Amino acid sequence: MRVEVVAVGTELLLGQIVDTNSSWIGEQLAMAGLDSHFQTKVGDNPDRIRAVIGLALERSDAVICCGGLGPTQDDLTREVIADLLGVELIRDDEIADRIAAMFASRGREMPQNNLRQAMVPVGCSAIPQQPGTAPGLCCPVTVDGVDKVIYAVPGVPYEMKEMVSGFILGDLIGRSGEQAVIRSRVLRTWGTSESALAEILADRITELDEIGNPTLAFLASGVEGLKVRITAKAGDAEAANEIIRAEEAALEPLIGHLVFAHDDDNMESVVVRLLTERGLTVAVAESLTGGYVAGRICAVPGAGEVFRGGVVAYQPDLKHRLLGVPEGPVLTEPAAVAMAEGVRAALGADIGLAATGVAGPGESEGLKPGTVFLAVSSADGSIATTATLPGDRERIRQFSAITLLDLLRRVLLDV
Amino acid sequence: MRVEVVAVGTELLLGQIVDTNSSWIGEQLAMAGLDSHFQTKVGDNPDRIRAVIGLALERSDAVICCGGLGPTQDDLTREVIADLLGVELIRDDEIADRIAAMFASRGREMPQNNLRQAMVPVGCSAIPQQPGTAPGLCCPVTVDGVDKVIYAVPGVPYEMKEMVSGFILGDLIGRSGEQAVIRSRVLRTWGTSESALAEILADRITELDEIGNPTLAFLASGVEGLKVRITAKAGDAEAANEIIRAEEAALEPLIGHLVFAHDDDNMESVVVRLLTERGLTVAVAESLTGGYVAGRICAVPGAGEVFRGGVVAYQPDLKHRLLGVPEGPVLTEPAAVAMAEGVRAALGADIGLAATGVAGPGESEGLKPGTVFLAVSSADGSIATTATLPGDRERIRQFSAITLLDLLRRVLLDV
Repeated sequence: MRVEVVAVGTELLLGQIVDTNSSWIGEQLAMAGLDSHFQTKVGDNPDRIRAVIGLALERSDAVICCGGLGPTQDDLTREVIADLLGVELIRDDEIADRIAAMFASRGREMPQNNLRQAMVPVGCSAIPQQPGTAPGLCCPVTVDGVDKVIYAVPGVPYEMKEMVSGFILGDLIGRSGEQAVIRSRVLRTWGTSESALAEILADRITELDEIGNPTLAFLASGVEGLKVRITAKAGDAEAANEIIRAEEAALEPLIGHLVFAHDDDNMESVVVRLLTERGLTVAVAESLTGGYVAGRICAVPGAGEVFRGGVVAYQPDLKHRLLGVPEGPVLTEPAAVAMAEGVRAALGADIGLAATGVAGPGESEGLKPGTVFLAVSSADGSIATTATLPGDRERIRQFSAITLLDLLRRVLLDV
Repeated sequence: MRVEVVAVGTELLLGQIVDTNSSWIGEQLAMAGLDSHFQTKVGDNPDRIRAVIGLALERSDAVICCGGLGPTQDDLTREVIADLLGVELIRDDEIADRIAAMFASRGREMPQNNLRQAMVPVGCSAIPQQPGTAPGLCCPVTVDGVDKVIYAVPGVPYEMKEMVSGFILGDLIGRSGEQAVIRSRVLRTWGTSESALAEILADRITELDEIGNPTLAFLASGVEGLKVRITAKAGDAEAANEIIRAEEAALEPLIGHLVFAHDDDNMESVVVRLLTERGLTVAVAESLTGGYVAGRICAVPGAGEVFRGGVVAYQPDLKHRLLGVPEGPVLTEPAAVAMAEGVRAALGADIGLAATGVAGPGESEGLKPGTVFLAVSSADGSIATTATLPGDRERIRQFSAITLLDLLRRVLLDV
């Protein structure tokens, strides 16, 4: 089944907003085993939106349109779809009542424009999930005798994601004629290359190719690691989940040590949760990362429960004076350990983290850019590691930050 | 003149890479006064790439293709263009020699595959700027008697930007039949809303609408502020630049205090340059931003000349103990000043910066998320300000960081 994505909005063409919605939907479609061959951005112009959706319907089985569902005159998606289907728009009283009630609950008067959002093309239905005021649409259509479908979702990422995850992916799989229930789980890994991961999993993938269920797929996510998706089919959700659980157990001895999170979790949310569960606090000493490690921990709501603070000791003298690093070279594993111990003591934390090294563009102390020393210190002692990281200054700094957070994760889990 | 963008690469459809290239090109086209109605992403499939480029050529005057110019079998753009034009690919010996010389200079043997990059469709030419190994292509084509053009550029952002800025935009303007030379300059502003900026400039825009040259345009860039573009036409580059200089001088009394950078400069690169010119060093005390301010300063190559380091005092007791903030509330302007003075003294910097406030999601000390206190301290004294910032936790933290950097910029320039 082929699914095409159309992103609507002049601001996307002008580069005022980067179209991350289409990328996210593309990843979800790939993970659900659905093909996607084209993604198009088009401005807020009814003729051009119509032409793009029409072309997408010709060459694909389903079209997901993002954006243009708001209350203003610029928001044209629902009118264009009605026009394309050759039907009228009629008001859905249930949606209208809900929009009115939402304004009333906030003590605000509802602009009449907002009732435009309650208009639904005849023969189409509203998508159940409606966290915001912009209802999504599900519009079945027959093209040359073939049943196809247009979905319309808001451009606000949070609302779009709710509707795609909660309704559209399941509806697409249902329409694909697949009778089975499909479930998937993403294992997020850090610390190996795509080719190495493929090699580790090669035998298992060969076995699964013969069995046919579940399936495994990889997705590279740059400085955020590699994702492994397990997808299972079964007669019902419980059976599909059971297949996933069994496969995850089978993969555990192979890649369990590389998996840092599942599904939508990220490295910092995992680390904050592990620290919270253990009642431990953390402090960070940074040189080349310049605050990125502290900034990521601090991004997790509730980080205040476990995060004491940090010291960015960019100049060598501050490493000696504030963190107690002994005089001498500051680009070594012992210096990283001294930084981690120093920040733990100075900030009164249970655990100290440290990153020092060369971000580039030039060499330092005879070391090439990408040479990085990381350490974790606690009451039980310290461990340090040397990493050689690829990329430019920015990438080296970002890779250093996630690698240090992963080192902390491993220490906390003792793996 | 209508210009369409086609981004080639299966990894874009799968969401493994977000297509920021098309967004950047869209912005450049808008700034050059060129229309762009569609942007399409397509995978590494020759039939589909051909169909997308063919459609783009029908509905636009020029097509910019990004990606698919590398040395591997997956890189299909040049073959598809040759096929579409109905011509052969022939080797460009000059390009082949340059590729061979580049491998030789690195002491590496050249894989034969790399010579694929020296193949050019008959009638097309290589784009002069070639910082990497993937040469760009400029391919004139006549469609139904109308002269059109296909450009092909690498997907590597740095190489793509060099070719678009250095060759394609000028070539497009030349082909648009415009005899005049067009030059533009971007003024980057911080500290006001789009509607307020539009109001300030309303009279001037009305005047310019009558004169017709230069023109002014706005572009919103989220947490990075608003851009104002001045575009001028003249008989030669010097005359166009003179018009821009005169317009910038005319705008100076209106928005000069809001302009923090020009063209490709950003807030942190400007701040690092101002500090370097004055021979001053800086240190940062952060609470809600958790390291973002230090991280941005540190992102500028050469930051080591002026950046001492920072203290992330997330917990109140660290503000008192490490930074000397008096006991009492830590979410106030006086607390921000004490943090700035404290970090300046503790880290031995000429200037101290501080950010404290409420990132959310919940309230703190009875203050709503987005209430932020910022301070700059130097030998000449301290100044502080209170900001009320919009958005979620992440956006509030990012807005806080750039607002504090802008405050430092104003102090350094005494504006």
